[in-house]
Amino acid sequence: MKEFANEEFKEKMRITFDYNYAMKEYLGSDNTVSSADIDDYTEECAQVIRDIKKEREEGKLPFMDLPYASEEVLEIKQLAKKVRYMCDDFVVLGIGGSALGMTALMQALKGPFHNAQNDDDRDAPRLYVADNIDPDFFKGILDNIDSYRTIFNVISKSGSTAETMSQFMIAQQFLKDNLGAGYKDSMIATTDAKSGILRDIVNQEELSSLIVPDGVGGRFSVLSAVGLFPAAVVGIDIDALLAGARFMDEMCQNEDVRKNPAALSALIYYLYYQKGRNINVMMPYSSALKDVADWYGQIWAESLGKRHDLEGDVVNAGQTPVKALGVTDQHSQLQLYVEGPDDKVITFIKVGEFDNEVRIPEAYSGISGIDYLGGTTLTRLINSELHATEITLMKNSKPNCTINVPAVNAFTLGQLLYMLEVQTSVMGKLMDINTYDQPGVEQGKLYTYGMMGREGFEDKNEEIESEKKRVDKFKV
Amino acid sequence: MKEFANEEFKEKMRITFDYNYAMKEYLGSDNTVSSADIDDYTEECAQVIRDIKKEREEGKLPFMDLPYASEEVLEIKQLAKKVRYMCDDFVVLGIGGSALGMTALMQALKGPFHNAQNDDDRDAPRLYVADNIDPDFFKGILDNIDSYRTIFNVISKSGSTAETMSQFMIAQQFLKDNLGAGYKDSMIATTDAKSGILRDIVNQEELSSLIVPDGVGGRFSVLSAVGLFPAAVVGIDIDALLAGARFMDEMCQNEDVRKNPAALSALIYYLYYQKGRNINVMMPYSSALKDVADWYGQIWAESLGKRHDLEGDVVNAGQTPVKALGVTDQHSQLQLYVEGPDDKVITFIKVGEFDNEVRIPEAYSGISGIDYLGGTTLTRLINSELHATEITLMKNSKPNCTINVPAVNAFTLGQLLYMLEVQTSVMGKLMDINTYDQPGVEQGKLYTYGMMGREGFEDKNEEIESEKKRVDKFKV
Repeated sequence: MKEFANEEFKEKMRITFDYNYAMKEYLGSDNTVSSADIDDYTEECAQVIRDIKKEREEGKLPFMDLPYASEEVLEIKQLAKKVRYMCDDFVVLGIGGSALGMTALMQALKGPFHNAQNDDDRDAPRLYVADNIDPDFFKGILDNIDSYRTIFNVISKSGSTAETMSQFMIAQQFLKDNLGAGYKDSMIATTDAKSGILRDIVNQEELSSLIVPDGVGGRFSVLSAVGLFPAAVVGIDIDALLAGARFMDEMCQNEDVRKNPAALSALIYYLYYQKGRNINVMMPYSSALKDVADWYGQIWAESLGKRHDLEGDVVNAGQTPVKALGVTDQHSQLQLYVEGPDDKVITFIKVGEFDNEVRIPEAYSGISGIDYLGGTTLTRLINSELHATEITLMKNSKPNCTINVPAVNAFTLGQLLYMLEVQTSVMGKLMDINTYDQPGVEQGKLYTYGMMGREGFEDKNEEIESEKKRVDKFKV
Repeated sequence: MKEFANEEFKEKMRITFDYNYAMKEYLGSDNTVSSADIDDYTEECAQVIRDIKKEREEGKLPFMDLPYASEEVLEIKQLAKKVRYMCDDFVVLGIGGSALGMTALMQALKGPFHNAQNDDDRDAPRLYVADNIDPDFFKGILDNIDSYRTIFNVISKSGSTAETMSQFMIAQQFLKDNLGAGYKDSMIATTDAKSGILRDIVNQEELSSLIVPDGVGGRFSVLSAVGLFPAAVVGIDIDALLAGARFMDEMCQNEDVRKNPAALSALIYYLYYQKGRNINVMMPYSSALKDVADWYGQIWAESLGKRHDLEGDVVNAGQTPVKALGVTDQHSQLQLYVEGPDDKVITFIKVGEFDNEVRIPEAYSGISGIDYLGGTTLTRLINSELHATEITLMKNSKPNCTINVPAVNAFTLGQLLYMLEVQTSVMGKLMDINTYDQPGVEQGKLYTYGMMGREGFEDKNEEIESEKKRVDKFKV
């Protein structure tokens, strides 16, 4: 896809954010956000955008510059090209931020049936993302691959992620058992440039490697080697992806909140959060974009769910992300969204043009309950249902917005992911919390170390043992 | 699996519900539920259980008797046996309650790699559940199957479900193009016994068919032909599944809430809902049980998300279900769960024994950050992480419960699904709402009819057109 350099193409593929039905002007109810509310925040938003720009210039937000790392991208593409022909199966060992981004890219741009295709029909290796340590799941992957035609990509910045490093050790043994010393050619690490356990192993065992850039947290790493390398291996056009991100970057630098999709959407969610709406639903009407909602779930939850604000006061902040899929979840969640509590703001993702337009035959023209379907298309049906859902919610005073994606391709995906990253940064600023840390997960790690018998964590194990003594009172 | 008749096996495989860390006795905080709170509801719960029993005896809750429908089950098994050898691909056309149950069964009991396996390794047909009308998704399924070796199972009680009937018409044309009149042998309908559009089509075209029992709503239909037939086709032991459901049924009839896992768990969620916790997280630590959380999401949201209570007062009730997966989402959602608002009650599902126990090799005994992993197993790691997460949340006064599933098999799955169905019924009674209807989704259907040009719904289309005239003011 080279069209992404063409201005007309870019304009046609521009993502827009429609917030009509999130506004009091349509919703009517008192507990909603008005255009005047947005005006009241215009200056604060401009300041937030300037602050982010300044932090970026100071090198504090390197994730924002990932779309411009042309040297690294060249290296990624070269290695991917080589690897692509070396394997039938490409297995990512990674979890959280080292898995969700590429899963979203894969589902969006290669579809759900890529792995199930016959070898002849498939244009790139199968991709398995081993994002859980469930033994049956991981064993299932190993049982499905041929050690001679598989490349493992182990991803961990520090090399101390218990789940990923366990998988790495198991995969290494699996390869050694079959390939002997040649196993090294089947293992590529994506890790810190200089330090950490995995970097040491790479140096010691002379493995191929790529770099997780400094200062880029896992959940903001999809446009680094973490997400780009697996994407390139399965044949995703990462140049187009990054061009889309750069295109969005321009829009997201606009200090006028009304012209900045990331800032405007963040402000809407923030104002509703202030009004007590603690749930943020993302509901793409597109199977391809299903896992974008899952990726977004991490960036939104982990970035904004914080005990303290920047002044150190206890705020227990956070808006819970919920992923849904249209039209499927109309038959599961819509009843609750329409009639339930006023605790949500809902964002749909609408795809303008699908790759296929499947016609519904005029098979039962005599039967009044279904004859209206004949002669139409699935595209018309899915987008009619989306529109019907938007209006129904609006008429019930339930705020909802829609991200319009003209078509699902690498260029629009790049825009979408980048917009949601910047949106999260803006939201963090508005909420006055640290968007980029995750202190709440440390305690659980220490307990795990204790239970796993790691040296130096005996006291944690004792703490758990003493808990065990008082449990089992409440059980049925 | 014939062991399910053996008392020792049943006891060993009994599902339990652990609510220690949901109790004030552990959590300490004021905003939590104490053992005394449960005692206060003992009589009300006993009454609810009696009321449900009475309604069941009056034939008002036929979903509760599905595990005893031996004649229907025999018919399902016979047809499944025949079909199984007739096809390599089995495609379900269904949505919502006609899709989520069997997807959960499939993921749990056949694993995520069933479809991706080579024909030689696979012991049953591939199963595709076409639960969305996304044209690229549905076309992807059709592109992946061989019309000569595929059976379609179209599921709709009324036969007027727009999504399913569109797919039916497309699939029928697809078959006719390839097989001519012989297409009829490749199509099986699961629908109302006597009336409705799909039953008329079955009669007219002499298709094979199974029955959606009267009075069983879609979301409560997994243990009818809707879920059982596809399950049987892919080789799931539906006798064991139903035996598990019957085993749970006994427990769920106990009028003592402390001894009734469905009632006790419902009461816990209810008491937390009363305290303002509007989010119900289900987080299995098992890839196999991932889609059980998705199935549960429908039954919980659609049953309990209601505008009116039984007295007709506006209550806008509902607790939003959130699905998460352990350990994966520790790296995505746990930060929010630990540090965020007190708006959740979390239920883990713990698997005692996995099918495989994958050993982690002692590969890096010199490196202190990862050496503790060597010599342990993935089962130990996943269950240590679960335990660490439970304790961390408890220490942060975040209520959490755990459903203990001794092992994932058809017998335990039957217990689990049945327990969650009855739990939902009890919760509906406690909330004083109608658990079994879904009036909120009607309005959207009418708008869709209007937009799709269905006769008699022109006014709905006009209503939408007039909406269109005032939109597009708020867009970026």
